[in-house]
Amino acid sequence: MSDTGAGATAASAVPEGVALTVDEDLLRSVDFAKDGDGLVPAIVQDATDGTVLTVAYMDAEALRRTLASGRSWFYSRSRKEYWQKGETSGDRQYVREVRVDCDGDALVVLVDQHGRGACHTGERTCFYRTIGTGPGVPAP
Amino acid sequence: MSDTGAGATAASAVPEGVALTVDEDLLRSVDFAKDGDGLVPAIVQDATDGTVLTVAYMDAEALRRTLASGRSWFYSRSRKEYWQKGETSGDRQYVREVRVDCDGDALVVLVDQHGRGACHTGERTCFYRTIGTGPGVPAP
Repeated sequence: MSDTGAGATAASAVPEGVALTVDEDLLRSVDFAKDGDGLVPAIVQDATDGTVLTVAYMDAEALRRTLASGRSWFYSRSRKEYWQKGETSGDRQYVREVRVDCDGDALVVLVDQHGRGACHTGERTCFYRTIGTGPGVPAP
Repeated sequence: MSDTGAGATAASAVPEGVALTVDEDLLRSVDFAKDGDGLVPAIVQDATDGTVLTVAYMDAEALRRTLASGRSWFYSRSRKEYWQKGETSGDRQYVREVRVDCDGDALVVLVDQHGRGACHTGERTCFYRTIGTGPGVPAP
């Protein structure tokens, strides 16, 4: 029995996702038909610090897989196939919450991001480039 | 000269937006042509607390107006017209930063949200309904 060996095994294991508890009525209300392609944008946000990590697309099946597995599944518009985030890169997303917007055509997915981050470039967020900055006007 | 009168005038005035300083090269790199409709999703996020407030759509002109005015402009896919957030409701968004994602087909817009919030229902965020919740798996 080696503490080192046991530790290495535990550290390298990939944790299972945990299925979400689902509001079935609200799930049925998502308007996948709106855009004609059966997809809605899913904004993936870090559950711990609120960083918007990426935007990808889900159809009804990708959302079902996400809720059932507790890990994010998307549908690739270019490759026309389902993909599970991190399955190749190891940068997995474990889902804590899925929200839907007022008119049912966009999702927010709150995740625990594992690995390097969400972006294929190695950046933590896909939104690492700034087009413009200004002072805004702080709310009164 | 009445203090009350002067105060009332100041309180009811609508602040002007402030134009953003723009990275023109990065602005040109936004891939509006990707989806065929000339639009990209714009995720509007509260600059102060990170709440995802809403998702709307911008074409090149809506983005140009947003950067130039310092207030958020979108393009309505259903009404097929430009609209400036808060122009009717008074719930204006003053823009602090616009980011673009790794492949240039999505934007994050960081705003100071004035008024009640971003949602036409009166909620602060359009994402006020939760489809599913779970424990996630905290990152190691």
